Amino acid sequence: MAAAGIGGLLLTTPAEFTYFTGYLTRFWESPSRPWYLLLPVEGPVVAVIPAIGAVLMAQCAVDEIRTWPSPDGADEGRALLTEAIAEGVAGQGPIALPDGPEDVPRVGFSALADLQRRLSDLPGAVHLVGDGGLVAQLRARKTPEEIAAIADICDIAGRAFARVPEVARAGIPVDQVFRSFQALLLEEGADWVSYLAGGAGPDGYGDVISPARAVPLAAGDILMLDTGAVRNGYFCDFDRNFSVGPASAKAESAHARLLEATAAAFDAARPGVTMADLWAAMSPALGDAAVAGRRGHGLGLQLTEGASLLAHDHTVLEAGMVLTLEPAIETGAARMLVHEENIAITEAGARWLSPRVQGSMPVLEG
Amino acid sequence: MAAAGIGGLLLTTPAEFTYFTGYLTRFWESPSRPWYLLLPVEGPVVAVIPAIGAVLMAQCAVDEIRTWPSPDGADEGRALLTEAIAEGVAGQGPIALPDGPEDVPRVGFSALADLQRRLSDLPGAVHLVGDGGLVAQLRARKTPEEIAAIADICDIAGRAFARVPEVARAGIPVDQVFRSFQALLLEEGADWVSYLAGGAGPDGYGDVISPARAVPLAAGDILMLDTGAVRNGYFCDFDRNFSVGPASAKAESAHARLLEATAAAFDAARPGVTMADLWAAMSPALGDAAVAGRRGHGLGLQLTEGASLLAHDHTVLEAGMVLTLEPAIETGAARMLVHEENIAITEAGARWLSPRVQGSMPVLEG
Repeated sequence: MAAAGIGGLLLTTPAEFTYFTGYLTRFWESPSRPWYLLLPVEGPVVAVIPAIGAVLMAQCAVDEIRTWPSPDGADEGRALLTEAIAEGVAGQGPIALPDGPEDVPRVGFSALADLQRRLSDLPGAVHLVGDGGLVAQLRARKTPEEIAAIADICDIAGRAFARVPEVARAGIPVDQVFRSFQALLLEEGADWVSYLAGGAGPDGYGDVISPARAVPLAAGDILMLDTGAVRNGYFCDFDRNFSVGPASAKAESAHARLLEATAAAFDAARPGVTMADLWAAMSPALGDAAVAGRRGHGLGLQLTEGASLLAHDHTVLEAGMVLTLEPAIETGAARMLVHEENIAITEAGARWLSPRVQGSMPVLEG
Repeated sequence: MAAAGIGGLLLTTPAEFTYFTGYLTRFWESPSRPWYLLLPVEGPVVAVIPAIGAVLMAQCAVDEIRTWPSPDGADEGRALLTEAIAEGVAGQGPIALPDGPEDVPRVGFSALADLQRRLSDLPGAVHLVGDGGLVAQLRARKTPEEIAAIADICDIAGRAFARVPEVARAGIPVDQVFRSFQALLLEEGADWVSYLAGGAGPDGYGDVISPARAVPLAAGDILMLDTGAVRNGYFCDFDRNFSVGPASAKAESAHARLLEATAAAFDAARPGVTMADLWAAMSPALGDAAVAGRRGHGLGLQLTEGASLLAHDHTVLEAGMVLTLEPAIETGAARMLVHEENIAITEAGARWLSPRVQGSMPVLEG
């Protein structure tokens, strides 16, 4: 922070609270209340939070907790926060909000404007600025404990994927498969399932972000399930493809090329190479059938975080980074297959966190 | 909008996209990409979105879809959005972002500042303003179809709650109960489970936002589960209390007072009364043991939305509103019980959406 010329960080999101203090709750689902964490370049770390969070926050790594009865219909803690900033950061420089590529502050539009006014009215006029991706860079390099947590949820999801044949076969509607698969994830140890997407269709699927529909699986379909399940606050993010009955030669060949692309990126991954290098490593296997878009991203306390596997993303890999490798390939008009694995970067190269798929697609009863 | 003097709305959140266009996806879990929906006071509704969303958005209620390949590491659609605003809103007034009490725009800090600069550079200088709660007020009055959707997920959760004795008894760790209960919700028809909180302890629990811990249930505990499950984009939000073995007279009496408080607010609820009136209706039953804080809130496409049952919230109830009634009562030092039901306001009064609890707490095997 000192090197970046900032006086402190103002943090507002679930991932930021968990990262810096260990505070973990699903209560963020309710947008009623703002939560603020002030990390000055020097001095105590102060949580300025709704009273309802005080009991849990007292068990976390903060020096001071200041609360207000929220929601209160009035200033929602902004006077209290301004006071904490005036005491803790006065004269130390501007306050930075994380503004890396995947950072979205959890503050209302008019609340943010009001806070900016209050701070600029302070003696010495404190300004809010972006952190230039400082927090994102810090979070991108995981500790061994963080990598173990991601490996844990990857194992859980791997066991759930292995049980998909129990819940998916020709005739079962895709929305039912989605429900059952989430139950399998929970049964195998996920705390909750923040993300499940997928698709199903002959030789592939048209889009991978729609909710599941009540359309029965049919022989010849490829079913893809892509999950971001959570354990102890950390996400996995990988998918698996399944063939309903025997796969066509076209689908099997496309799947093989995805595995090849993933392996090529894995082999290339080590400290010093760039995200763009991993992107490029996948290209020979995908050829002209490559689907446009990124081919992976950071992963951790968010489903997606940090840099992207894009041709023009020159972020340099460092030991401790956790990434998804996620190539996609066309199999026909508006049809594609996507494969995804999770890896960690070590000094010696990459390490699989998800249980790597090898060989042909698992076959569901057709 | 015209009455409020604004030229259009700029919408950025999942609930806003679903409400105005029907667009429904879990892809929002990834914060990589911003999504913009422009509703001018006159003229076409334009979605300015990442290319990955085009297939799904084409099935929704928008007039135009403009896409960019996202993430792109560059302006992330802001040039495209500025162009759409210049064409669609020029001269019609400022652009409003929702800023009701539970509205948080999904835009990065520096991205928002950059967008504001681009818009103020347009001929005629378009400004971003808050909507003064306009969208929140609109969304608070549900259509019959929306109320039916909420009733549907309430029924699903009601069936799952009725099955809790299958998965919870003395000796089973609370985190395991949380996993199993989420699986029951899915089995009964929830699309996904966005929220589950709760607590367990002798005669009550100390806080209701912590994640579940691996502590076994014990005879004499009261177990509370509070869920925001989702079906077709709509949430329920209610809880149930269970006694592990027979409840103490103190716990049973506290529970009875919560039911009494809930019934009093239900009886008072009709168009024309205020949120503060419902808050006050609960007070006689709770007496001095009332826990501070709001006693309910709006519900719909978010777990919590709109006004709060607070002593000073004078929002007037209207037919179509959907609310939670959520009194809390102390049962000892740092111990409480919370009860919650969901209701809809009709011309004739209130209607239960959750399957109202009556009588004593269900008893789990002790």
